[in-house]
Amino acid sequence: MSASEAAAGAAVPVALGAGPDVPRRGGEFPIGLLGHGTVGAALAELLAERAEHVAARTGRRPQIVGVLTRESGSFEEILPASELIVELIGGIEPARSYVMEAIRAGRQVVTANKQLLSQHGEELFAAARGAGVQLRFEGAVAGVVPVVRVLEESLAGTRIERIHGIVNGTTNFILTEMARGLSYEEALRAAQLAGYAEADPSEDVSGRDAAAKMAILARLAFGTPVHLDDVRYEGIEQLQVDDLEYARELGLGLKLIGTAERRDGGLSVRVHPAFLYAGHPLASVSGPFNAVTVEAEAITEITMSGPGAGGRQTASAVLGDIVSAMLPPISPPCPVSHLPLLEDFEGAFYLHVEVADRPGVLAAVTQVLGEHGVSIKSVVQRGMGERARLVMVTHPVTESRLGAAVARVGEFDFLRSRPRSIPVIEEEFM
Amino acid sequence: MSASEAAAGAAVPVALGAGPDVPRRGGEFPIGLLGHGTVGAALAELLAERAEHVAARTGRRPQIVGVLTRESGSFEEILPASELIVELIGGIEPARSYVMEAIRAGRQVVTANKQLLSQHGEELFAAARGAGVQLRFEGAVAGVVPVVRVLEESLAGTRIERIHGIVNGTTNFILTEMARGLSYEEALRAAQLAGYAEADPSEDVSGRDAAAKMAILARLAFGTPVHLDDVRYEGIEQLQVDDLEYARELGLGLKLIGTAERRDGGLSVRVHPAFLYAGHPLASVSGPFNAVTVEAEAITEITMSGPGAGGRQTASAVLGDIVSAMLPPISPPCPVSHLPLLEDFEGAFYLHVEVADRPGVLAAVTQVLGEHGVSIKSVVQRGMGERARLVMVTHPVTESRLGAAVARVGEFDFLRSRPRSIPVIEEEFM
Repeated sequence: MSASEAAAGAAVPVALGAGPDVPRRGGEFPIGLLGHGTVGAALAELLAERAEHVAARTGRRPQIVGVLTRESGSFEEILPASELIVELIGGIEPARSYVMEAIRAGRQVVTANKQLLSQHGEELFAAARGAGVQLRFEGAVAGVVPVVRVLEESLAGTRIERIHGIVNGTTNFILTEMARGLSYEEALRAAQLAGYAEADPSEDVSGRDAAAKMAILARLAFGTPVHLDDVRYEGIEQLQVDDLEYARELGLGLKLIGTAERRDGGLSVRVHPAFLYAGHPLASVSGPFNAVTVEAEAITEITMSGPGAGGRQTASAVLGDIVSAMLPPISPPCPVSHLPLLEDFEGAFYLHVEVADRPGVLAAVTQVLGEHGVSIKSVVQRGMGERARLVMVTHPVTESRLGAAVARVGEFDFLRSRPRSIPVIEEEFM
Repeated sequence: MSASEAAAGAAVPVALGAGPDVPRRGGEFPIGLLGHGTVGAALAELLAERAEHVAARTGRRPQIVGVLTRESGSFEEILPASELIVELIGGIEPARSYVMEAIRAGRQVVTANKQLLSQHGEELFAAARGAGVQLRFEGAVAGVVPVVRVLEESLAGTRIERIHGIVNGTTNFILTEMARGLSYEEALRAAQLAGYAEADPSEDVSGRDAAAKMAILARLAFGTPVHLDDVRYEGIEQLQVDDLEYARELGLGLKLIGTAERRDGGLSVRVHPAFLYAGHPLASVSGPFNAVTVEAEAITEITMSGPGAGGRQTASAVLGDIVSAMLPPISPPCPVSHLPLLEDFEGAFYLHVEVADRPGVLAAVTQVLGEHGVSIKSVVQRGMGERARLVMVTHPVTESRLGAAVARVGEFDFLRSRPRSIPVIEEEFM
C-alpha cells in the first residue's frame, strides 16, 4: 500500500483510526511490538495482566501478535497482522523507517522514543495527519507523568506561558544524593548501583536526554516545531559540592531544570542546573522522580509528578496510549466492576488522651490498646499540673478495632476529656 | 426529538458526537451556556480570548449562542441552536433536567456540577452512552487539576489501588492557617475575607463537598458506581489547635483527605481529617490548592496539584473539556504557531566568586555588576585565610547581560577561580 493510498483511506470515517485494509479479528485488537528490552518486556507482561480489563473498557482484547527483537521476528510479517505498532527500539534507525512505514500502512503507532520525536517529529506528525492515524508518545517524555496528554487535551485551549520540568530521573537522583553531601562522583556511582544510571551516563548527565524531552514538550505546549538542536543544554558534571552547600544557606535547592517559555514574542527552550526556592513546587521532587509545572494566566499553575524511569512505569504510559488508540472518542464512563462499598478501613492513627496525672495511667491505657490489638509506634506524654496528655501514633489497625479500644479507654475514671483519634497517612512508596 | 430517536441517531457514525439534526454553521461551533455566575462569566471571557486559538486547533470557532441566567434566556431556544451545552447552574434541579434533555437531543454536555454527578451520575452517564454523546466534567472535581482526564484516559489500563486527594481548597486554606497558629474560627474568618469560604461554609467545612468529589473520582478510578450517600465524611469543625501542635512535634501535617481504596475485595471511600508524614506528596500542598495522588503497582504513584478554586481556573478546566468535545479523535499535533526560538533568557542568578581576601574587593565586584545593570538581592561573604568567597543572588536580569558582567569580573587580578553562575527559579504564583 502506497502513502497516497493510505492518505486516501483517511477520508473514510475511521472510528478507530484504522485504514480500510487493516485486519479486524473478532474481539481481538492485534498489536505488533518492536523492541523487547526493559520496557518492551514490561509492556508484554502488563498487557497480559490487563487484557481482560481493557477488553471490558474498549470492547476488544489487546493481543501482541508479533515481536521484533534484534535476534528474531520480521517487521514485514508483523505489520500486516497488526492494527497498532508499538515502537520501543529507541534511537533513530531503524525505528524511524518502521514508524514511517506503519503510518503509511494506516496503522496507529505508539512510541516512547524521545530521540526520534525530538529529531524527526515534524515529519512523523505530518505523515500521521496525512494518513489519518494516531501517533501517541506519552512514554517518551516523563515516564508515567501524564504531561503529554494534559498538554494536548486538558490545556488545548490554554495560552501557556511557561513549563518547568525535572524530566531526567537519573540526574535528579544524583543531585538528591549530592544535597546529602556526596560528591558528584560518589552520587553517580550510587545511581549506577541503584540501576538509575547507565555505565555510560553521558546522555543523562550532559542534559541531552532532558533536552530531547523539552523539545517534545515545547512543541506540544507552544505549537511551534522545536528540534533537539534548538535546545541549549548544560548538564550537571561541572557542579561543585560547595554550590549545593551555599544554596542550602540561601534556602535554595539545586535541580536540573528544563524550561520552555514565551519571551519577547519568541520561545526560549533550555536545560541547565537551576536553583529553586523551597516553596517552588519542583523543589520537593527528590530521587528518581520526574515532575512538570505548567504555568498560564488562566490556570495559575499545574504540577504533575511521578516516577520518571522504570520499565513497568514507562510500559504503563505506553499502555495508556494503546487504550486511548482503541477507544472510540465517545465514551462516558461505563461501570466495569461492582465492588462492595466498605465502611471500615485500616491505617495508623493519632490518639490524643487527656488524663489525671497519676502513676499507672499510661500503663492502663496501653494495656487496653494491646488487648484490642492496637500497637503503639510512638508516644508523647506531657504533664500539665494535675492533668497529663498522652499523644500516640499507632501501627496500622482497622478503624473498628481502634474504635473499640478507644471506647474502652473512654471508660477509665482518670479520663479528663473524650479521647480523640485521627487517621495518619504514611508514605507508601518513596 | 424523543429519547428513542436520539438513541437511534447514535447508530450513525458521529465523528463529533453530535446527532444528525444538530445545527452546523460553517466554521462555527455553537455553545449554549447555562448559568452565568463566577465560573460562567469567566468562561465567556476565556472563550472570547481563546476562540481563534481553538479554531486553529479544531477547525471551528467556538461561539456562545445563548446564555441562560436566573433572569433571562430560554433553555428551549438555546438547546436547538447549540451543538454543546455547558451546565454551570449547580445543584440538582433544574440542572438535571436540562442536562438530560440536552443529552436526549444528541448534544454534547460539559458540566462542573459535582452535586449532580455524585447523586445522579449513573443515570446521566447511561443516557449519554445511549445517545452517543460526550458528557465531560473535569471542572467538577479538582478545579484545574486534570485528574478526571488522567483517570479516564492515561490510567484506563491501570489497576488503581488507592487515591488520596485534597479536593477542597477552602478547608485546605483553613488548615494551612491553623498550622500557623490561628484558631479554627480565626482561620475560617481569614478564608472568608480572602474569598475562599462562603458566608455559610458548611458544605465545605463539613466535608460534604469533598465527599461528592471523591464519589466521582472513585467511580472513575474503580469503575464501580459510587453515590454521595456511599461516602462517609467528617469535616474539620471539631479539630483542636493542640492536635496541630502535637502533630508538628511528631513530624506530621494535618489535611482534610479524601480516600478511595481497594480493601478486602471491596472499596472504601471516605473523607476525614488525616495526618501526613512530611515526605508524603500531599503534605506540602498548602493554601487553597488541590492535589490528588493515584497509587497503583504499575505506576508507583502520580501526584497532580494546582489551584482548586477560582472562576477562571474552573472555567479553564471547562474549556479543556469543550476543546476535547470539538476535536476529532485523530489529531497528531499540528503546528499552530512559529515562534522564533531564543537563546537569551531572563531570571535571577546565583553567582559564586572566589577572590583574594583584601579590602575593596566586594566593592569592586558589585560596582562592575551595577555598571552592567545586575542588581544584587542577597550576598554571603566568607573569608578562608587568604581567600574569600562571595556568593550572591541577583535580581532578574538577562543571561547575556549577566554574562557580560561576569566576564568583566573575571578580568580582575584578585580573582582566584573562574566565577560560576547558575540560574535561580523563583516561585511565580503561590
